[in-house]
Amino acid sequence: MKALQYVAVGQPPVVREVPTPEPGPGEVRLRITAAGACHSDSFVMGLSEAEYTAFGYPLPMTLGHEGVGVVDALGEGATGIEVGEAVAVYGPQGCGRCHSCAQGIENYCPHAAALGIRPPGLGRDGAMAEYMIATDPRLLIPLGDLDPSATVALTDAGLTPYHAIKGSLDLLVPGSVAVVIGVGGLGHMAVQLLRTLTSATVVALDISQSKLDFAREVGAHHAFLSDDQAAAHIAEAVGPGPVAAVFDFVTNPPVMDIVRSLSGPRTDLVLVGAGVVETTVGLLGQPYGSRIRAPYWGSRPELMEVFELARTGQLAVETETFSLDEGPEAYRRLHDGELRGRAVVVP
Amino acid sequence: MKALQYVAVGQPPVVREVPTPEPGPGEVRLRITAAGACHSDSFVMGLSEAEYTAFGYPLPMTLGHEGVGVVDALGEGATGIEVGEAVAVYGPQGCGRCHSCAQGIENYCPHAAALGIRPPGLGRDGAMAEYMIATDPRLLIPLGDLDPSATVALTDAGLTPYHAIKGSLDLLVPGSVAVVIGVGGLGHMAVQLLRTLTSATVVALDISQSKLDFAREVGAHHAFLSDDQAAAHIAEAVGPGPVAAVFDFVTNPPVMDIVRSLSGPRTDLVLVGAGVVETTVGLLGQPYGSRIRAPYWGSRPELMEVFELARTGQLAVETETFSLDEGPEAYRRLHDGELRGRAVVVP
Amino acid sequence: MKALQYVAVGQPPVVREVPTPEPGPGEVRLRITAAGACHSDSFVMGLSEAEYTAFGYPLPMTLGHEGVGVVDALGEGATGIEVGEAVAVYGPQGCGRCHSCAQGIENYCPHAAALGIRPPGLGRDGAMAEYMIATDPRLLIPLGDLDPSATVALTDAGLTPYHAIKGSLDLLVPGSVAVVIGVGGLGHMAVQLLRTLTSATVVALDISQSKLDFAREVGAHHAFLSDDQAAAHIAEAVGPGPVAAVFDFVTNPPVMDIVRSLSGPRTDLVLVGAGVVETTVGLLGQPYGSRIRAPYWGSRPELMEVFELARTGQLAVETETFSLDEGPEAYRRLHDGELRGRAVVVP
Amino acid sequence: MKALQYVAVGQPPVVREVPTPEPGPGEVRLRITAAGACHSDSFVMGLSEAEYTAFGYPLPMTLGHEGVGVVDALGEGATGIEVGEAVAVYGPQGCGRCHSCAQGIENYCPHAAALGIRPPGLGRDGAMAEYMIATDPRLLIPLGDLDPSATVALTDAGLTPYHAIKGSLDLLVPGSVAVVIGVGGLGHMAVQLLRTLTSATVVALDISQSKLDFAREVGAHHAFLSDDQAAAHIAEAVGPGPVAAVFDFVTNPPVMDIVRSLSGPRTDLVLVGAGVVETTVGLLGQPYGSRIRAPYWGSRPELMEVFELARTGQLAVETETFSLDEGPEAYRRLHDGELRGRAVVVP
Repeated sequence: MKALQYVAVGQPPVVREVPTPEPGPGEVRLRITAAGACHSDSFVMGLSEAEYTAFGYPLPMTLGHEGVGVVDALGEGATGIEVGEAVAVYGPQGCGRCHSCAQGIENYCPHAAALGIRPPGLGRDGAMAEYMIATDPRLLIPLGDLDPSATVALTDAGLTPYHAIKGSLDLLVPGSVAVVIGVGGLGHMAVQLLRTLTSATVVALDISQSKLDFAREVGAHHAFLSDDQAAAHIAEAVGPGPVAAVFDFVTNPPVMDIVRSLSGPRTDLVLVGAGVVETTVGLLGQPYGSRIRAPYWGSRPELMEVFELARTGQLAVETETFSLDEGPEAYRRLHDGELRGRAVVVP
Repeated sequence: MKALQYVAVGQPPVVREVPTPEPGPGEVRLRITAAGACHSDSFVMGLSEAEYTAFGYPLPMTLGHEGVGVVDALGEGATGIEVGEAVAVYGPQGCGRCHSCAQGIENYCPHAAALGIRPPGLGRDGAMAEYMIATDPRLLIPLGDLDPSATVALTDAGLTPYHAIKGSLDLLVPGSVAVVIGVGGLGHMAVQLLRTLTSATVVALDISQSKLDFAREVGAHHAFLSDDQAAAHIAEAVGPGPVAAVFDFVTNPPVMDIVRSLSGPRTDLVLVGAGVVETTVGLLGQPYGSRIRAPYWGSRPELMEVFELARTGQLAVETETFSLDEGPEAYRRLHDGELRGRAVVVP
Repeated sequence: MKALQYVAVGQPPVVREVPTPEPGPGEVRLRITAAGACHSDSFVMGLSEAEYTAFGYPLPMTLGHEGVGVVDALGEGATGIEVGEAVAVYGPQGCGRCHSCAQGIENYCPHAAALGIRPPGLGRDGAMAEYMIATDPRLLIPLGDLDPSATVALTDAGLTPYHAIKGSLDLLVPGSVAVVIGVGGLGHMAVQLLRTLTSATVVALDISQSKLDFAREVGAHHAFLSDDQAAAHIAEAVGPGPVAAVFDFVTNPPVMDIVRSLSGPRTDLVLVGAGVVETTVGLLGQPYGSRIRAPYWGSRPELMEVFELARTGQLAVETETFSLDEGPEAYRRLHDGELRGRAVVVP
Repeated sequence: MKALQYVAVGQPPVVREVPTPEPGPGEVRLRITAAGACHSDSFVMGLSEAEYTAFGYPLPMTLGHEGVGVVDALGEGATGIEVGEAVAVYGPQGCGRCHSCAQGIENYCPHAAALGIRPPGLGRDGAMAEYMIATDPRLLIPLGDLDPSATVALTDAGLTPYHAIKGSLDLLVPGSVAVVIGVGGLGHMAVQLLRTLTSATVVALDISQSKLDFAREVGAHHAFLSDDQAAAHIAEAVGPGPVAAVFDFVTNPPVMDIVRSLSGPRTDLVLVGAGVVETTVGLLGQPYGSRIRAPYWGSRPELMEVFELARTGQLAVETETFSLDEGPEAYRRLHDGELRGRAVVVP
């Protein structure tokens, strides 16, 4: 089969012919119908040789941690699912048996790393191929008649902001203000999710004027450039006082300055971007009662909820579609910020 | 192998020789080390022919929905578990793939009934035998070095009150009062659970003076006869005003009168006994803001939490132990109210 | 001043000239700018002599438990508020000092009844007059520049369904279904609230075709006649299976049959209408894990949240406006079901 | 009357004769029966001239933000309370009318600072005197027959850890581990609170061996020196893996290193000490799903809950008692770490 693989550190990914994988006991083979490209793939391909080795990822590695497909073959003892069923892959799988996993919170399984369990495309072969192995039927969410290429990005670009927002729902009561920083693949989902899940006033910030227009199109009440005037513009638009929650999909030092300028008592500072920032914390180092959170991806039941939102028309991903052979070009455009929404590869 | 089976409606259960079961694909065979006898078994064996048929249970049926054992054989494709591991069986299994099951809330799976999925011992062969089939490794909770006969009853008599209490935790703040009615197998667990999970003042009611002593032994602050003076005695002991929650492990009309006499604004009326009662509801028919709840068994992560309480010495079941051959006698004594705590059968 | 008073049991209310009240220590006098008429007023005026006496309400009594106005005079020591401020009255006041009241949950204050504390218009003089006394500044919610007659009904017709829905938010996840029965003053608010607070699919039931149209106008996804076909119509529209929550604004035996026919595992049965119904409860008498709730009015912070929804354009009351002299006619039309939405009296 | 006042920056506090204060409209005068000394007083008295000025605190200022007393005189319009009632003072008061204050969450009132509202003893005259003014009856919690000097410290040393712990209760399920760092006035409360509010295993860390003994006396399951071996000792005692929550009552850089070494996926890092620390945050800068929180004092209903714990014998403060004239000595010993538990001044 054909697969889009990362083969050498620092080199662009390439399309290669590789053996079609066979499902082991309890496993499921999918015929992939769509796979999404994500900034975290770019992040991984931007690592140095030493960093990549430290992550423990193999080479070559088929990319793609966002995948949907059709059940194609079942390993022995794989039950509860039928060949031909359309499914989406839950990526951040855990051990499946601990207390976290029993609640479907596999994204925080404390045993996964030690057991060598990795999401597809992030440490083992992923969805940018004609076929892919899912290690357990529980990880496959029924897709029904949802369009594969229109919804594949929900598995990360939808799920990640959904999980981030759920952790702040207690604060997002009527009259509250939520701010989204960075209106890309995840951020434009966050705007829609805040609108459908809460009654909060939603403000988007971005460095690009076209992204601000995009934010308004998908439901932001207000959208401003994310510069040093952002706090003043927000105060003018929604009134003075701290916002309830800031969802930062960028996470670098200048953006952290903006996040903090918007915060006050009880604000949730939610850092979702794949970054790291130095800051002050503690009673005298952060706003009273604030929480600095770093949510990672989302849980299995949450992914089901995200697909329900798509099914009821309350969430739509903006996508551009590429063939598998165009996969490298999709990643180039993603890296260069030339995409609006999400790049989807259809094998 | 030997099994304790219900063979004919209205007849006592008998010990019989039956074929040792073989695990199918994805299934697990356990060598049973302990099984618990429960009032709901008695309830089932008390059904008329017509009622039993309506439940759709087979005959003969091996009893026992509380079971612990050692993994003895794996069906093909059964992964994530090893032969020799000591485990407890999670009984109220669901379809395993829906939104409820993804959270481990299999006890409320809306698909189980239609799919013909039944707990062991309640619709298919259970744990009162030398061997038993578990249909999926996810249903097996690691037991570690906990004593099988001392902890098997946690799988229902521990889990059911645990789940009932968790639904009221928002009300059981310091200064609140919780009442447990019926200090049997589940009730004496409820008293302990309320003590370790909350700071509430715990009051137990029962019709037997020896059960009141038992309640005090396991931690009740107060214990009174469950008669028409109960409300007055409670008010005298803890002050006037409604209690926060009543956990009723009996559930019949006279007990419902007591439950209601203790209730007021925001009281949780939690009916756990396998009964049905006619009562008034609605804004003018029940206390303002009250909730009449009927929780059923418990979730998979909750069962893990219950075992953690046992592991840390915060929960202990009072048990009497019987051999498999003595199983019928165990049920007789259970039925006749001659047990203190829980009857456990050790094959 | 003029006041609309209930003067004799069984007689229609009348407009009378009464002394303008003076605020006592800590109290506040409002010049009323709008007052709402409610079914519970009709309910009270429908009580027999004996029942009315049992409620302990005075005669004559100025009607109106929904009121907004302008601060007109302050009693001595009334602080934190200024003459001229536009405010809404929080009706279900409590003692103000207990644990419930400290959280603003005054509607469930366990001491109010014993202390003789009553909502305005329900046991003491209310808002259907030129002036009214509020017993404490804490009970006055800033109205800002919201239109009095357009928003006065939020204080009950908005707050009551808001509080009812908040108690079910844990169940109203994406993909869930919520049913509203009775699309009157409260019900048409409930539809809007469910749309803005949740992602649930909203179904409305009523006995009147025009109310079904009304429900669709204010946001219901589906609307059906509340007859014995209702459950079948709902299943056809949203798929089979139990709904997550039913909000019953009628609460009588035939409607309870519908409520129960829609319920299954974990359904919230929320009875909001001023009624009483006999039903079965308990593990074998109600769906597994279901809760039968009877919420009453709402909390003080919740009322603020309701006004924030109005302020941000997410909630609007359908009203018909009457002068104080037309007040008796407003109640007649309310009683005869001739209103669409809420009757508001502007003194 | 006599008062213990801070009169000059950098000088020890002194006992002085000052005019007995008169209650204004709506206010209440208390005759103080006990007042507590706190590290935050020492912190304030350790500020430089410039820093103290920046805080905006007056000079002289009567110390004491922990106070209990007896209602001595009522300002005009102060209602709902009687002369002679024994009460405790809720310190972190807010505006009393906003959405936060309506829930009793006055400690996070976003308006207090702008309105110049300060806790007693932290910006205006406090409880280290024979009499004190409380600005509103709502701030006075009934003390009943609790002993003043034995319970006064609950108003801060009890309330602050209580509030900190409540924010982590969702994580402190059976089987979880909670760590308390710093077993002083607040820390020894935290150990007791974790034991009564949760089923978690409680580990205490401190730099002093006698404080470790103290921690064990008040209920810690384990206690270790807070050095670079702490994480290893904890892993040995409770098993490997991240702890659920760390409550840090010290908050300085070396302690932050320990906090982080104990943390993993979903850990709550709760910084309660009056400090500021620089650290890394973000998805790649803190554990996945972790929250770095900085709770401040506590809410009004939470203070009531703390007193209920004292009333039911589940919480006791270790205290040393001083006369008002000995007040300066109490602060000296507090500053020099010579106290076990809390210093209480009885006027």
